[in-house]
Amino acid sequence: MIVAMQEAASEEQINAVMEIMEEAGVNVHRTTGATQTILAGVGPTASLDLSKFEVLPGVLRVHRISVPYKLTGRAFRPEGTVVEFPNGVKVGGAQVAVMAGPCSIENREQIFTTAARVKAAGASFLRGGAFKPRSSPYAFQGMGIPGLQLMHEAARENGLLTVSEVMEISQIESMLPYIDLFQVGARNMQNFNLLRELGQARKPVLLKRGIAATIEELLLSSEYIMAGGNYDVILCERGIRTYETATRNTMDLSAIPVVHKLSHLPIVADPSHGTGRRDMVTPMAKAAVAAGADAILVEVHPNADKAASDAAQTLYLEQFEDLMGQLRVIAAAVGRTL
Amino acid sequence: MIVAMQEAASEEQINAVMEIMEEAGVNVHRTTGATQTILAGVGPTASLDLSKFEVLPGVLRVHRISVPYKLTGRAFRPEGTVVEFPNGVKVGGAQVAVMAGPCSIENREQIFTTAARVKAAGASFLRGGAFKPRSSPYAFQGMGIPGLQLMHEAARENGLLTVSEVMEISQIESMLPYIDLFQVGARNMQNFNLLRELGQARKPVLLKRGIAATIEELLLSSEYIMAGGNYDVILCERGIRTYETATRNTMDLSAIPVVHKLSHLPIVADPSHGTGRRDMVTPMAKAAVAAGADAILVEVHPNADKAASDAAQTLYLEQFEDLMGQLRVIAAAVGRTL
Amino acid sequence: MIVAMQEAASEEQINAVMEIMEEAGVNVHRTTGATQTILAGVGPTASLDLSKFEVLPGVLRVHRISVPYKLTGRAFRPEGTVVEFPNGVKVGGAQVAVMAGPCSIENREQIFTTAARVKAAGASFLRGGAFKPRSSPYAFQGMGIPGLQLMHEAARENGLLTVSEVMEISQIESMLPYIDLFQVGARNMQNFNLLRELGQARKPVLLKRGIAATIEELLLSSEYIMAGGNYDVILCERGIRTYETATRNTMDLSAIPVVHKLSHLPIVADPSHGTGRRDMVTPMAKAAVAAGADAILVEVHPNADKAASDAAQTLYLEQFEDLMGQLRVIAAAVGRTL
Amino acid sequence: MIVAMQEAASEEQINAVMEIMEEAGVNVHRTTGATQTILAGVGPTASLDLSKFEVLPGVLRVHRISVPYKLTGRAFRPEGTVVEFPNGVKVGGAQVAVMAGPCSIENREQIFTTAARVKAAGASFLRGGAFKPRSSPYAFQGMGIPGLQLMHEAARENGLLTVSEVMEISQIESMLPYIDLFQVGARNMQNFNLLRELGQARKPVLLKRGIAATIEELLLSSEYIMAGGNYDVILCERGIRTYETATRNTMDLSAIPVVHKLSHLPIVADPSHGTGRRDMVTPMAKAAVAAGADAILVEVHPNADKAASDAAQTLYLEQFEDLMGQLRVIAAAVGRTL
Repeated sequence: MIVAMQEAASEEQINAVMEIMEEAGVNVHRTTGATQTILAGVGPTASLDLSKFEVLPGVLRVHRISVPYKLTGRAFRPEGTVVEFPNGVKVGGAQVAVMAGPCSIENREQIFTTAARVKAAGASFLRGGAFKPRSSPYAFQGMGIPGLQLMHEAARENGLLTVSEVMEISQIESMLPYIDLFQVGARNMQNFNLLRELGQARKPVLLKRGIAATIEELLLSSEYIMAGGNYDVILCERGIRTYETATRNTMDLSAIPVVHKLSHLPIVADPSHGTGRRDMVTPMAKAAVAAGADAILVEVHPNADKAASDAAQTLYLEQFEDLMGQLRVIAAAVGRTL
Repeated sequence: MIVAMQEAASEEQINAVMEIMEEAGVNVHRTTGATQTILAGVGPTASLDLSKFEVLPGVLRVHRISVPYKLTGRAFRPEGTVVEFPNGVKVGGAQVAVMAGPCSIENREQIFTTAARVKAAGASFLRGGAFKPRSSPYAFQGMGIPGLQLMHEAARENGLLTVSEVMEISQIESMLPYIDLFQVGARNMQNFNLLRELGQARKPVLLKRGIAATIEELLLSSEYIMAGGNYDVILCERGIRTYETATRNTMDLSAIPVVHKLSHLPIVADPSHGTGRRDMVTPMAKAAVAAGADAILVEVHPNADKAASDAAQTLYLEQFEDLMGQLRVIAAAVGRTL
Repeated sequence: MIVAMQEAASEEQINAVMEIMEEAGVNVHRTTGATQTILAGVGPTASLDLSKFEVLPGVLRVHRISVPYKLTGRAFRPEGTVVEFPNGVKVGGAQVAVMAGPCSIENREQIFTTAARVKAAGASFLRGGAFKPRSSPYAFQGMGIPGLQLMHEAARENGLLTVSEVMEISQIESMLPYIDLFQVGARNMQNFNLLRELGQARKPVLLKRGIAATIEELLLSSEYIMAGGNYDVILCERGIRTYETATRNTMDLSAIPVVHKLSHLPIVADPSHGTGRRDMVTPMAKAAVAAGADAILVEVHPNADKAASDAAQTLYLEQFEDLMGQLRVIAAAVGRTL
Repeated sequence: MIVAMQEAASEEQINAVMEIMEEAGVNVHRTTGATQTILAGVGPTASLDLSKFEVLPGVLRVHRISVPYKLTGRAFRPEGTVVEFPNGVKVGGAQVAVMAGPCSIENREQIFTTAARVKAAGASFLRGGAFKPRSSPYAFQGMGIPGLQLMHEAARENGLLTVSEVMEISQIESMLPYIDLFQVGARNMQNFNLLRELGQARKPVLLKRGIAATIEELLLSSEYIMAGGNYDVILCERGIRTYETATRNTMDLSAIPVVHKLSHLPIVADPSHGTGRRDMVTPMAKAAVAAGADAILVEVHPNADKAASDAAQTLYLEQFEDLMGQLRVIAAAVGRTL
């Protein structure tokens, strides 16, 4: 850490800051310039809350000079992580994986129809929500475990893996038989108790970026899971909240190359939530693959207009099939397969 | 709801939209203008996801014309809600309540010293965290229930009420004996399972606005609690995330008059999290009371520089006593007491 | 326009609103529902400031039901605009145009070297700043007209067109001999006097989206230029300001399909300003072409590390050449050429 | 400046960075830690674009350790600036100044009525726009110089000073006879040519914060004016753009104490633009005075509902008179007069 003192800082103030740094176990190197004194601190600063130094008398600015995460950082696995599933499907390798399905599992026919069609089009994961976080208490809240059983059956019949959102620690155990990949939703990205429990789980985790989370915070949340011993984490960019209202969220595609630079973990793009509009999903999915996304997560429904949730951003099955054709060409253009 | 069709919309497109509206149980009134057709829908639109109409062919825009919450809305209790506690303390009345204490409960001496001093200065609630959501897994995570026992003892000895954050459904029951007011943190504002459970709790709830939540979303989250029968909800403005970095968050004080206009619930201001800087807490606390806040929530610590968490935004005890003197004058200037 | 009255609105309040609407020249249609009254207004609402109705007593919400721009809207030219330059180069057609060059024109050797290399790599425009808006008054402010003369000479020698930023009405006339495309920077997107003057200019205009501008505001600014008779407008996405700090701005690539849906104008992507980091330019340029961008604007410099401005986001010449090769493949994958 | 190298940085990379720093005229002090090398640079870094170091190979992070402005900084005038006007009115002293008037000057009766009433209520400045920047080219664009003549006459007859927005360098000279305080609007906060010209003007300048500007950028823009020799600068907080839509902008009242800490310049609060809603102006004006604002700028109109611009946020004259009474009490509560 670096503490830059104000030009007018007194010797007493400088000493007080040095003392507090040392009490925190940090070794301090002082540089006294013509106009300004700089204190460089070395030691266990990853777990220190640096902002407390910023408000000490005489301090101008404080900067962290190391990254606050360890296991998630690129340096931990410079070659990159490939998450491999029991059936051999990989996320993070040369093949761009596709995860598709309805926002909510609604009934047997819906999920079986979807499974067959997305498999035929080339998807390797079937997605579907069983526990739905809805901003209104009066909206449809999901089918629960019976929905997951349906999805699991539909997936296995078609050779697909399953991915579904876990919202509560208490759901983990009961979801285990039916899902291959736990999804942590944007609203739970900093539900640290849940992340810690998933660190103990025996299945990979798809961690979505919070609606107002920085990329650094996403990596810190991933650290919670990895610190528990579960290294099979896949990150997900799904749009952040900005002032723009033409789209539901603003999809931050630069998160893809940024994550690849800072971390070894694979990253998935979700253009359905990223845009919130069916007519924007295809161009943004193509852009995401061009930017280097390791997988695409999209909402598809046999009767998209009447979907119980997220209808506006859900593709018709025909649109999805068309999208897959287009993605194949883009994947090839960036040296990957689909 | 109102659906404005594009000027070029065909009769076929208009009919398709009307049909989908009617299937959703909405009565449709059509107005055919010289250039544009407007469809006004009346019925159960509060639970409808209107965005799905926006992507239908021929649609220009869709607008909700009613508010999506009911129990939380001003109309439900035009006279306003006053939350009354067993010892007679009220939040939402003529008196501005003050809730003060450390970010984290650390030990007996810390919490007892704080309790005595904040009580003497005029506070009516002792705050303190026992379960700490920290963005880094390597940071201090709180004392848990033993911490709450200490805080409860310190509060009762000084005639104070207690408020502390609940992060998990499983914590509710064990916290009940020790706290008078459940706090839901910003990161859990849309943890709907937790809100639903708190709707069943027999204690009031302090609901903090999420870091990227709109005021409407805050009111919808409150609706989850009230829909369960717990009408003792107190809202809290604690700063939102913007591009500005001079403060930790940007405190949206206009949320205070906006909430008072849209809802009957009291609203608390938290200038500690709102600014993240000790030297900004006093001016912003005064501004909040001037804007009409029903209570102030501040972090205070006998040894603020060395607090285990949130040190930068924590007041020294002397600063808090000085703040209370200043707030008393402002409260009087807006016709309230402190 | 639609005015939704509050449920509790009195007959007197409804009449007062209707009266103010009618005074503004709007025809009012009233719908009295069981719980709520709706007033639909038809007439010259494009020039009305609708927010004034929102604060009238008894009003719940007010909505615009038509788009506030005309010439810029897709309906004005459903087939799309192709801006054609004197040498036959087109922006908005099947070919993706490339505009490249240094942030600032610095000297003869710099601009001539750049011109030769970017032309050889396939660019059709040479970019370079002569008047630099710098946030610090102590930073390099540009070479002015002599710089433009150098750039023009270098461009013509290599068969390139020129594009440069105009910051002041007084600069338009003196820039005319040297530039083929006026660039309006993000900070001037709402400098309406400048836009109006450019509406009279006899050269095309590249209009950059403001750092906090909505896409609708970008289209309204374009309307200022088109209303003056200059229909050769090219829009530009160059990143917006959000809370994320990993990149200089957050590039909103969804603006590309949104603009294509709402407007007939071509849209350019600027990944240099969009990301602010040299190592993010290539993936985001590829993503932009995949999303449908009509042109790419990039900063290139023979000695990028020592560029007088924007060094961090400026490509080395070799990086640019490599980028062009990659973009060619992506362009082909979306059915275009480069 | 501080350059923190990556843990894996090679000796060659470290030397390359040191060389580029030295070429920029910076003296480099190297600290080689067990895991990380730190380069501290001293010298003319205020005018350096530090981001270019961030993308050099082997670099982890780069930090500025000094403030990038000089004349605007608190250290330049620790006692604070009081801007004094010819009639003795001061901004920045013990008295909170009030600036009031219509958004646009519309006609003689409007401006004279307003002048008499706001003077009687205690205002010392009459505000009114003559050149209106409107996002739509089809909206009212202002009366120009004849409007300013009317306002000046009305102001002098009532012993008021005048403040009005300047949008173009060419307007400065013609406005000089009629205005006492030049206002630079939010959209022009980074119109550096205009700021530079105002640095030469012989009248004080009210500089509004841009809609997406950081406080540091506001101070840097002020530096442009002061660098020209005009030290009579008054800053203004008028709301920033966020995702919240309940108010037109989000008023960042913490900018008031932040500016007072970082700079010696006075700061004005504009709750009209800050909220965009008449019913929010009074609580936010009170909050601003409680937070330490040196003046309040509000829109008032004798016929607010029918104002030609900004009607929604314009107070009725009676509301303004009531506001003045309330502000007087708050001003007294913070030890000031009104």
